[in-house]
Amino acid sequence: MKMNKNQFCPLPPMGWNSYDYYDTTVDEEAVRNNAKYMAQHLKDYGWNYIVIDIQWYAQGAGTQRDKHQYIPFSQLEMDSYSRLLPDPERFPSSKNGAGFKPLADDIHNLGLKFGIHIMRGIPRIAAHHHTPVLGCSLTANEIADPSSICGWNPDMYGVRNTEEGQRYYDSLLELYASWGVDFIKCDDICNTNMYKHNPYSAKHEIEMLAHAIDKCGRPIVLSLSPGPALIEQSFHYEKYANMWRITDDFWDNWDLLKDMFHRCALWKDHVKEGCYPDCDMLPLGYLGKGFGHERQTRFTQAEQRTMMTLWCLFGSPLMIGAELTKLDSWTLSLLTNDAILNLRTPHCKPALLELNDCFSIWTVYNEIEKNAYVALFNLRDTEMEFSVSREELLNSFPENIDFTQLKELWAGQLKPCTDAVICTSIAAHDTCIYQLL
Amino acid sequence: MKMNKNQFCPLPPMGWNSYDYYDTTVDEEAVRNNAKYMAQHLKDYGWNYIVIDIQWYAQGAGTQRDKHQYIPFSQLEMDSYSRLLPDPERFPSSKNGAGFKPLADDIHNLGLKFGIHIMRGIPRIAAHHHTPVLGCSLTANEIADPSSICGWNPDMYGVRNTEEGQRYYDSLLELYASWGVDFIKCDDICNTNMYKHNPYSAKHEIEMLAHAIDKCGRPIVLSLSPGPALIEQSFHYEKYANMWRITDDFWDNWDLLKDMFHRCALWKDHVKEGCYPDCDMLPLGYLGKGFGHERQTRFTQAEQRTMMTLWCLFGSPLMIGAELTKLDSWTLSLLTNDAILNLRTPHCKPALLELNDCFSIWTVYNEIEKNAYVALFNLRDTEMEFSVSREELLNSFPENIDFTQLKELWAGQLKPCTDAVICTSIAAHDTCIYQLL
Amino acid sequence: MKMNKNQFCPLPPMGWNSYDYYDTTVDEEAVRNNAKYMAQHLKDYGWNYIVIDIQWYAQGAGTQRDKHQYIPFSQLEMDSYSRLLPDPERFPSSKNGAGFKPLADDIHNLGLKFGIHIMRGIPRIAAHHHTPVLGCSLTANEIADPSSICGWNPDMYGVRNTEEGQRYYDSLLELYASWGVDFIKCDDICNTNMYKHNPYSAKHEIEMLAHAIDKCGRPIVLSLSPGPALIEQSFHYEKYANMWRITDDFWDNWDLLKDMFHRCALWKDHVKEGCYPDCDMLPLGYLGKGFGHERQTRFTQAEQRTMMTLWCLFGSPLMIGAELTKLDSWTLSLLTNDAILNLRTPHCKPALLELNDCFSIWTVYNEIEKNAYVALFNLRDTEMEFSVSREELLNSFPENIDFTQLKELWAGQLKPCTDAVICTSIAAHDTCIYQLL
Amino acid sequence: MKMNKNQFCPLPPMGWNSYDYYDTTVDEEAVRNNAKYMAQHLKDYGWNYIVIDIQWYAQGAGTQRDKHQYIPFSQLEMDSYSRLLPDPERFPSSKNGAGFKPLADDIHNLGLKFGIHIMRGIPRIAAHHHTPVLGCSLTANEIADPSSICGWNPDMYGVRNTEEGQRYYDSLLELYASWGVDFIKCDDICNTNMYKHNPYSAKHEIEMLAHAIDKCGRPIVLSLSPGPALIEQSFHYEKYANMWRITDDFWDNWDLLKDMFHRCALWKDHVKEGCYPDCDMLPLGYLGKGFGHERQTRFTQAEQRTMMTLWCLFGSPLMIGAELTKLDSWTLSLLTNDAILNLRTPHCKPALLELNDCFSIWTVYNEIEKNAYVALFNLRDTEMEFSVSREELLNSFPENIDFTQLKELWAGQLKPCTDAVICTSIAAHDTCIYQLL
Repeated sequence: MKMNKNQFCPLPPMGWNSYDYYDTTVDEEAVRNNAKYMAQHLKDYGWNYIVIDIQWYAQGAGTQRDKHQYIPFSQLEMDSYSRLLPDPERFPSSKNGAGFKPLADDIHNLGLKFGIHIMRGIPRIAAHHHTPVLGCSLTANEIADPSSICGWNPDMYGVRNTEEGQRYYDSLLELYASWGVDFIKCDDICNTNMYKHNPYSAKHEIEMLAHAIDKCGRPIVLSLSPGPALIEQSFHYEKYANMWRITDDFWDNWDLLKDMFHRCALWKDHVKEGCYPDCDMLPLGYLGKGFGHERQTRFTQAEQRTMMTLWCLFGSPLMIGAELTKLDSWTLSLLTNDAILNLRTPHCKPALLELNDCFSIWTVYNEIEKNAYVALFNLRDTEMEFSVSREELLNSFPENIDFTQLKELWAGQLKPCTDAVICTSIAAHDTCIYQLL
Repeated sequence: MKMNKNQFCPLPPMGWNSYDYYDTTVDEEAVRNNAKYMAQHLKDYGWNYIVIDIQWYAQGAGTQRDKHQYIPFSQLEMDSYSRLLPDPERFPSSKNGAGFKPLADDIHNLGLKFGIHIMRGIPRIAAHHHTPVLGCSLTANEIADPSSICGWNPDMYGVRNTEEGQRYYDSLLELYASWGVDFIKCDDICNTNMYKHNPYSAKHEIEMLAHAIDKCGRPIVLSLSPGPALIEQSFHYEKYANMWRITDDFWDNWDLLKDMFHRCALWKDHVKEGCYPDCDMLPLGYLGKGFGHERQTRFTQAEQRTMMTLWCLFGSPLMIGAELTKLDSWTLSLLTNDAILNLRTPHCKPALLELNDCFSIWTVYNEIEKNAYVALFNLRDTEMEFSVSREELLNSFPENIDFTQLKELWAGQLKPCTDAVICTSIAAHDTCIYQLL
Repeated sequence: MKMNKNQFCPLPPMGWNSYDYYDTTVDEEAVRNNAKYMAQHLKDYGWNYIVIDIQWYAQGAGTQRDKHQYIPFSQLEMDSYSRLLPDPERFPSSKNGAGFKPLADDIHNLGLKFGIHIMRGIPRIAAHHHTPVLGCSLTANEIADPSSICGWNPDMYGVRNTEEGQRYYDSLLELYASWGVDFIKCDDICNTNMYKHNPYSAKHEIEMLAHAIDKCGRPIVLSLSPGPALIEQSFHYEKYANMWRITDDFWDNWDLLKDMFHRCALWKDHVKEGCYPDCDMLPLGYLGKGFGHERQTRFTQAEQRTMMTLWCLFGSPLMIGAELTKLDSWTLSLLTNDAILNLRTPHCKPALLELNDCFSIWTVYNEIEKNAYVALFNLRDTEMEFSVSREELLNSFPENIDFTQLKELWAGQLKPCTDAVICTSIAAHDTCIYQLL
Repeated sequence: MKMNKNQFCPLPPMGWNSYDYYDTTVDEEAVRNNAKYMAQHLKDYGWNYIVIDIQWYAQGAGTQRDKHQYIPFSQLEMDSYSRLLPDPERFPSSKNGAGFKPLADDIHNLGLKFGIHIMRGIPRIAAHHHTPVLGCSLTANEIADPSSICGWNPDMYGVRNTEEGQRYYDSLLELYASWGVDFIKCDDICNTNMYKHNPYSAKHEIEMLAHAIDKCGRPIVLSLSPGPALIEQSFHYEKYANMWRITDDFWDNWDLLKDMFHRCALWKDHVKEGCYPDCDMLPLGYLGKGFGHERQTRFTQAEQRTMMTLWCLFGSPLMIGAELTKLDSWTLSLLTNDAILNLRTPHCKPALLELNDCFSIWTVYNEIEKNAYVALFNLRDTEMEFSVSREELLNSFPENIDFTQLKELWAGQLKPCTDAVICTSIAAHDTCIYQLL
């Protein structure tokens, strides 16, 4: 029986991604170290994906960082069927045709899952060299579309919407499945935004990828980048993918975080089992080394609480951008707060009560445990008093809720609540999320 | 306790609206005749709203139909507090300050509900004459916004977002509640599309209307026009209104009907109890008399089946545009097919399986009765073979479904189904909707 | 023989406009004082238009300046034919039906010309009161278009494109001609920018105005506002008007001035006898009293030189925004530099040699006097060295030019020039314009 | 002394271009045959450019015409410095490094000029193979921009805006000058329309080309494609190029021809010596062989007269798209009407008198010969009566014109004209152009 991609990830995936810290310079040692840390400190809380981001196949990646993020026309490691392979310099275990299998095996042995980033399409150099495609009489030049490029990365051409194009994607997934890949983050596909007439020009490549996953027999989660995803294509994302980015790259910048409230409002009804609008990685802890400027996140602790609360109640995937081995204890506690992480169960139903330029209020109701929550977000740059009437809240829960206490999930503190109104003061950019007891 | 507007209409409203047949010429006799017909022939199937559409307050409405749909700068019936009243010529029972109360009473006595159309804002002539506003020291000129007009109707100015503006809306709803109004279709508010910089320029008037309904103490359903509603404002519509139009005016034209499949795909996850994206009226039966050209619908029977099936499984409100007293038996049967109408219960969960330029497939699952349905729509201009694998279908239902027969809901016919694939041929623009037995 | 509107102003008009200083509060005394000053100090240099800007017809104009620039639904002075008249409170000489005739006469006696601002259309109150139109059996409601309003001023409705609409414009121009009006600045007509689908929605009103001027027999200059004018309508502006604004309102702000270089680049080939793309008023001297904050211009002296040089070589109309009676001697000298003003003769041909984000270079060639000029503009915020090769310059003049000296027109200083390159240092936002001798 | 590109073509160029008939299949024999025809039959009327259009460097060009206009990733003839050379198969005289020199020499010997089409940029294959650039230590990969491609042709990458990029263009022009090239039509440069954020993304390549022409010492006319050119960049086109296309590809289709009237209205003031907005090739005679469907032009004789009249009075370059050797005598007469062609002298000043959806009227005044012309164009699909008052006409001429006869330039017929009005009936899509005698 055909696989059902919605069962590949019944919860929004949680994991680590190499990009925010390593950019294109990620190597095997870094991956192993972060995986070990995750297995030891994070796995018990649900974190389990280790994802190697962009250009693991590029020789010399990162060596011209002053001029190029992605060195144009550089040497890419490629097999005889026009498929990219790990750069053996950075990923020694991949030598002799082993690919990512040894690394994936080790990660699986840690009880974790293994993911890779790919650019949609076929290497440009394959097209120009007319190299073969596995199981297909055509060569790369015949399946590559010379007018379909990525605006910001020079590696690939898009693949034409033909049987032979499908064959190429099939051959990719056969390889990745043989390595033990559990997760693919495909880039330049969710929004091909350089194109004037069609930001969804790679629609057919999403379908080809999904078909190839289906054929490969391995349940591989499909994540689409970059955003913003196009709301009018929501049906298509839902049918073929597991995650799709709802913003352009997210970084540690308050304006981007504030804006995410509006994007979550737009996409909130589109979060379903196996279908996750994606708020992008969590830029906390140490970041930016591969970009040439290692730094700690610019987000305040308040902003990090706000981010985690929004991502969790909305149901976004969670991908840590930090170098895990450098996590401080405060950040670790932020990432391992069970009360917050549990908002992500399928039985927790979020609802947006208010969103304006100054603040936002969400409620969450756990249908199994009959627990009710209310999250108050201060979007202003100064402290602000919140006062929410019981009435207003109660209409937003499906069942009769009575409560006499409030438990704040970050602080863990209880406060009695006898009035008709929930009152609290919240610092700039901070959040309070109460369970009603 | 505050009213919860989502409980005002637990199902998408069903009713009759005067516009498609009468345009601005609707009068009391016409309303009574259609109400009687509904009570006799349609009420038992759930149809119960009788809605008087645009310009019931305009003297001489429709008398210059060759030049104007809405006569500019004409006489409007208005009370001393800048509120519009029914034109006594067309609505004799409204004389002597009775307003719509006598008519509403009679409609209620038929077991039906009573609705009216309004244009957002305050009459232009009130602003120019500086007439009073009830319970407020300001006059109409001080609450009217001279730059806020409707692009296609000359009657009103928008109301400023002030306490006194709210007071005017409160006074309107007090009046409508005293008449016994159950439903308000407010126009020029969902999309104020003449404005370059802001098609949601009347956002505050939606809020003021909702607050006024809340204060008036009567559960009045709020319907917003015209479309297309703005998907990025979905949170706001859901918070304040019960229905909002997802297209511009819908008429009996295949291109508009075909396009509705894409609009339903966009809005499908936004249908919730008390919150209904609205596909607009059903232009079937006799139409257009008030427009000067009475005619029968241009939709074929196949297209009408397609429309009814889509509206019902999507969960759109259903408002008949036809003159009811002239309904033929075929059209009546279309409107009283219980199997189709029952797809609109809250326990029926629709899912879109495929939508492309040629066809669409939806499934519906009734969570209580554990019934499964599949609807196949031929969007092409020629007959087409459908063949859907069981596998494909089964993934889209939450529980294990087994079936050996298909029951087509329009034809009522059973057909055995032993193969792995559901096959059928469907005529141009037609639909088949099967229950899996 | 039909008049030729291009002969009404063989040079771009020069004058004074009441708006920048008085806003809506201009009165007869102010006009007379500024006219007297112009006659005494400016007339000899070519300045001769005195233009009364917006709402001379509005009673109480400016009295609610904290809330409204234009009081909505207020009392407008109007004659029995739906034509606006001067507010007698502010313009006492206009009483008893005299209109602006006495004031215009006095201005003519000073050797000056008289202009007024109008809003396109017919007063809203005329439409709502169904008042008569001169020489026409229809009333105002029948020629007014209720969907055609100005986005920022509440006084008028647009006029429909009919014979009777033309009759109304004819009646306006008959009145204005009888007063002795020489110049009309019509507003809300050049770009009706509130409208999503058509920023040139009042195209027919431009034509009706032009026809009415033609019929009235008096050579009245037609100036269109606001900008930005639409380049794809350049043919239409040229056919019917004398001046059209190429920007939205221009004020004493460097970013607006810098941007004007790009607008002049766009429109430079459209300056012809009787056809003047208009850079808007000169906001120098004392400004803003009617806006509630009298102030001196925020432009530095360098920026004012830059503005005057650009306006003059481009061939823009020159309308002083300052209160003339308060002009200081430096500003007066700026406005009476004959060498600069003479760049505006029809025989002076400007050419744009370079425009980028940092600087601009124009040349001007006087075909009669065979004089050559080069203007260097520093658009950066810091001092900058200019170095222009003779070669580069010479290609841009039609005839063989030889030169050994440079005469800077603002400073009046000569400097020898023997090298192959013209070198100079120019302060931030400043300009040098050299005559080649 | 620096060359002045405006002197390279004091009149808008006239010639033949291979594209409309040959597409990519043009070869040496075809070029020679057309050149011979031109020398014999057209040269005396001013026709003198022979231009070889796209992909003269591509081996096998046209052999996959059912699938591709431009075969992707195919073999291009290239020298050791990353410069494309003529395909020796199709251009035998180019062998052994001769390039286009032998062919150009022969064309020069016929008294004609020689032009070639190029795509902006450097061959993609050069970038991927890291081939050398003449006189520069960098290789092709270092000057090519991998994100700058043409949306419809797969051959090139854009060149980066660096000194080394300039060096590449310099090396191209050195080669072309050595061949004797007189005219370059550079494509994918005037409007790079696939790009969402910047349709003028190759602005710097226009500058680099112009600088390279300047350095090469040969007066080579620079023609930019495709259109539509951006009016807000008019200054930039004028500064660096001789011709720029004001539409996308023009073909023998009435809607395109009708639309050209609006484009000419937009650009009419930008026609100057050496600066020619370009209406594109004349698709008349036999066309389309290289496209797989040889045909005669779909334009009627009336439409061809209209096209020739508009192109000539506007001052567009004239490039014949037909296979010259197959010209019939009627078409030849159309192309050799001196009275029409003479409207293109610099002393002829055109003026647009009227343009609307139904008709257009232009006047032309020859300042030297004091001749006046009026052209009437019927843009409707049915015959139409024209009636133009003398008054209306006379205002549009600079000097006093008196006339008693009209001479129609196409028919050559005289008609007396004593009335105050010029009356004529014109067939659908046809034109009359009268000289006033």
